[in-house]
Formats: sequence, structure tokens, C-alpha cells
Amino acid sequence: MPMVRIELYPGRTAQQKTDCARAVVEAVVKHLGTTAAATQVMFVDVEKTDWLTGDKIPPAPAGS
Amino acid sequence: MPMVRIELYPGRTAQQKTDCARAVVEAVVKHLGTTAAATQVMFVDVEKTDWLTGDKIPPAPAGS
Amino acid sequence: MPMVRIELYPGRTAQQKTDCARAVVEAVVKHLGTTAAATQVMFVDVEKTDWLTGDKIPPAPAGS
Amino acid sequence: MPMVRIELYPGRTAQQKTDCARAVVEAVVKHLGTTAAATQVMFVDVEKTDWLTGDKIPPAPAGS
Amino acid sequence: MPMVRIELYPGRTAQQKTDCARAVVEAVVKHLGTTAAATQVMFVDVEKTDWLTGDKIPPAPAGS
Amino acid sequence: MPMVRIELYPGRTAQQKTDCARAVVEAVVKHLGTTAAATQVMFVDVEKTDWLTGDKIPPAPAGS
Repeated sequence: MPMVRIELYPGRTAQQKTDCARAVVEAVVKHLGTTAAATQVMFVDVEKTDWLTGDKIPPAPAGS
Repeated sequence: MPMVRIELYPGRTAQQKTDCARAVVEAVVKHLGTTAAATQVMFVDVEKTDWLTGDKIPPAPAGS
Repeated sequence: MPMVRIELYPGRTAQQKTDCARAVVEAVVKHLGTTAAATQVMFVDVEKTDWLTGDKIPPAPAGS
Repeated sequence: MPMVRIELYPGRTAQQKTDCARAVVEAVVKHLGTTAAATQVMFVDVEKTDWLTGDKIPPAPAGS
Repeated sequence: MPMVRIELYPGRTAQQKTDCARAVVEAVVKHLGTTAAATQVMFVDVEKTDWLTGDKIPPAPAGS
Repeated sequence: MPMVRIELYPGRTAQQKTDCARAVVEAVVKHLGTTAAATQVMFVDVEKTDWLTGDKIPPAPAGS
């Protein structure tokens, strides 16, 4: 432990994810009292069309 | 909150997902006492070959 | 399929969750072309202190 | 119930996943007191570049 | 990798979970070509009232 | 987006989680090109008895 899972829109490079993971691991190690070796970070790309916020969904077409 | 995650087989169109998300948000807002702005819906496509039900897995080949 | 997972703050009653699940299943069946029997809904309570939004986290104490 | 989700690196064949799922279902049925029909197994492929272990992340480039 | 997450109803003992995890790890190692050291198993108890199947949700009370 | 979920052993204080979340949000904003307002962090406590690593599971009792 810990296991960190980050869901995000696609488009970040492997380098961006690596840099982000490094900083996240530092944050976790510093504040949660664990070790880097015990910490995993997983990125999960989610397409924008698959991730909707409730007040930004277009209304249903008339008649539907 | 809330965060709604829907795992499903691939094949639904973006329009179907949008329509589904709109109805899910309405359900959540109505019954859980929250707002649409605070509600997110995420769809996660899972291939049929990656999603198995225990009593429908073919038996191991003879000799395996 | 589908599998619906709803993360929310604690405090909703079993009745509220049941009513919400019923409406969510109706939404999923109507829009995703599946059956109620194949649809599961899971609620996961998450304490408010365990769920933070990035712009609402209090600043670190001075000197920390 | 139960719902089993297995995150793994890509590259396993459908046959490997099927065989794994069969054995996992047997394990779950035997030890958790449930039925195969009630057990689902889902595989989620995660690219190696999306799954980082804290002590194996390359250091940031000098000057970054 | 792999990471195995098992959602189940509460009530299993730690011994049952340990025995189940051991068998799941064996299954994963045998069929997915990985090592026990690289495999984690996590159990997540979900109350029955928080886990609903679509065709077993009682109908809404009359007038609701 | 992004949504960050951190599974960890119980025992951290709300303050530790808040401090960790703040640092994680900073890491995500800096490296993934998003905003703090769009970033959520969720902590999920998992009991040690529910989280097993494959090579540290005690062997089955003799005769089992």
C-alpha cells in the first residue's frame, strides 16, 4: 500500500505521467508515512465522451 | 459527489451514453438529494472477452 | 453487464438507495439496451473527510 | 456477488484470461461460500507506462 | 501487477479471505505468467443493502 | 477530471489525508495541465487483513 489510481482525459504523454507519478509518490510518502517501494500509481485514460458532469449534459432532443 | 461509474460492453454510441447519463443524473438528484452539478457519470467499456460470469466459462480442454 | 457503482457521502437511507437504484436501472435498461436482470447497482459510502476537491482544501498551516 | 476485478499488463490471450477466470471462480466458490453463477471476473488491461511503482520511477531530468 | 480486487458481501472470516487469496494468487500465477510477489489481492466488503440486482429491486410504493 | 483514488491502510488522521491531498493536487495540476477545482482526491481505507500480497500469504494449514 498505498495504491493510487488517477482517472484523467487522454492526451498526456508518458513523460507527463511519469513526472506526475514521481510527485504523487513523494506526496504520499511524505504525508502518509509509507515508502516509495510500497506505493503504486496507475493512470486510467477516460475519453471525454465517456465522462459527463451532470449540469453539462445537453438536454434531450425535443420529442424524445 | 456523487460519482457514478458504469461498466458495460462496448458498442453503445456517444448519444446513447449521453442519454443514459442524463437519466442517471436525474435519478441520482431526485433520490439522493444532490445536484446535477455535483454529479459525474463515467462509462467504462469492457470487452466481452474480458468479462466472464462464473457459470458460463467453458471447461478447461481435456488434458490441461 | 452493466455494473453501476455509485460513490456518495454517507447518510442516505436504504430506502433512498433502493429508490435510486430502481431509477438508475430503468435509465440503463432504456438507454443502453440491456435487461434489469443483467444490471447491478452498488453504493459505496465515502466520508466527507475522505473526499476532497482540489480548490477547497485548506492551505497548509504556516511553517509546515 | 462476488465481483472480481483483475488489473494486469496487456499481452495475455483470451484463452489465458478464460483459464485464469475459471480457476479464480473455483477459488472464490470454494473459499467464500458462493456459487459460480453469482461470480463475475473482469480483466482490465493497464499499459506498463500507465502503472508505476514508486521506487522505480526514473528521477526527474536535471534542471527540471 | 496483477492487482485483484474482490467485492463481496460481509461475513467471511479473515481465514476464509486468506485461503481464498492464496488460491487466487495460485490461479493468477499459473495462468497469467506472473509471480506471487507481484500479485496483490484486496477484499472489499459491500453490504447487501448497498448491492442491488436490477430485477430484484422491490417496486416503488404506490403513489410514489 | 482528474479523479484520484488512494487506497491505503487505516490509521492516517484527517489532517494527514488533507495534507496529502493538497500535495497530490499540486502534483496533478503541475504535471497534467489541469486545475485544482477540477481535481478530486478520494481516500479509501482498506484493512490489512483485506489486503494481501501474494508471497506473504501464510501457507494453508496441513491437511486442508
